[in-house]
Amino acid sequence: MITIHGMADSGNCYKPRLLCALTGRPFRHIEVSMLDGGTKQPAFLALNPAGQVPLLELEDGRRLAESDAILWHLGQDTPFVPADPFERSQMLQWMFFEQNGHEMHIAARRSLLVYAERRSAATPERLEMTLQRGTAALGIMEAHLETRRFFVGEAPSLADIALFAYTHIADEGGFDLSAFPAVTAWLTRIVELPGFRPMTWLP
Amino acid sequence: MITIHGMADSGNCYKPRLLCALTGRPFRHIEVSMLDGGTKQPAFLALNPAGQVPLLELEDGRRLAESDAILWHLGQDTPFVPADPFERSQMLQWMFFEQNGHEMHIAARRSLLVYAERRSAATPERLEMTLQRGTAALGIMEAHLETRRFFVGEAPSLADIALFAYTHIADEGGFDLSAFPAVTAWLTRIVELPGFRPMTWLP
Repeated sequence: MITIHGMADSGNCYKPRLLCALTGRPFRHIEVSMLDGGTKQPAFLALNPAGQVPLLELEDGRRLAESDAILWHLGQDTPFVPADPFERSQMLQWMFFEQNGHEMHIAARRSLLVYAERRSAATPERLEMTLQRGTAALGIMEAHLETRRFFVGEAPSLADIALFAYTHIADEGGFDLSAFPAVTAWLTRIVELPGFRPMTWLP
Repeated sequence: MITIHGMADSGNCYKPRLLCALTGRPFRHIEVSMLDGGTKQPAFLALNPAGQVPLLELEDGRRLAESDAILWHLGQDTPFVPADPFERSQMLQWMFFEQNGHEMHIAARRSLLVYAERRSAATPERLEMTLQRGTAALGIMEAHLETRRFFVGEAPSLADIALFAYTHIADEGGFDLSAFPAVTAWLTRIVELPGFRPMTWLP
């Protein structure tokens, strides 16, 4: 069985857990937190020198980092990766957007507001920049979803899982999702997928 | 022939140009700059609602954004994508690292220092944060490259192209590469690849 080293209250760590739930794949969860310094302990750094979760550990001990690369690895040969090569590239486009244009602002702002450990980093300048850029990211998603049910093609893909992770808790980062009705409707479509589990779920 | 809408002096836009050079693939370059507002013009926003370059336009008019997704699309069926599925996932791991843990700091800091248009955003706080995080990213690359010639397996892959783009000009962002000898040696290995062209090259 695969192991996912992760933090329960992390959208990035929720991504592979949600994919496993949606595809019925069993996994073991090992809690490692960035808040108590767990990701910077020597024992964990030996597993992932980048000192980040999630970290996927395969049955044979091989390890893979970066939440969206883990999604890719576990998603192959599931319906969550489109068969069409161009749609596959579009899926990756939205996953790179998620990491470079969305998570860096929306997840970052949530972390500054939610975790006491991060409060000293929550300067007015950072709060303003993440609010502006995160709102712009939600605007791009809104325009795309106005005429679509999912991000790529006609079915949910890894792009939807990647973007769901921090969008569905964006309100905790001070983002007003009521201004984005197409995004809100899409969030509901993800929650209604067979096998869906909430972020608080652990196996 | 494919078209790459891009800005000459952008590492992200250099990535697909460098892949085309290394694989001998012809392409047309259309200059679109983020500095003079070109990426935010209605005509360009109609092509890419995210208002970013590079943007790939295929012969049939289909378009793809996000530099690393473009690399993926153009890299398929070339030696720059490993055949082994796990190595392919490792390649994507480094490409997501590049977008979430490297470009956001190293390219961002260079842009704050190099472009007069960005100077008002170059606050002491942003300069300090990008310096710290960018240096950490170079440290992770250094440790990985101490025992390796390329990021994944034994041959150059899309991960090397993605990471080369902003690492080779990190000094313009105020990063001292002499502190990272394994990274410096790897940069030289990329420059020595057959077909290599510098960032200033346009077809």
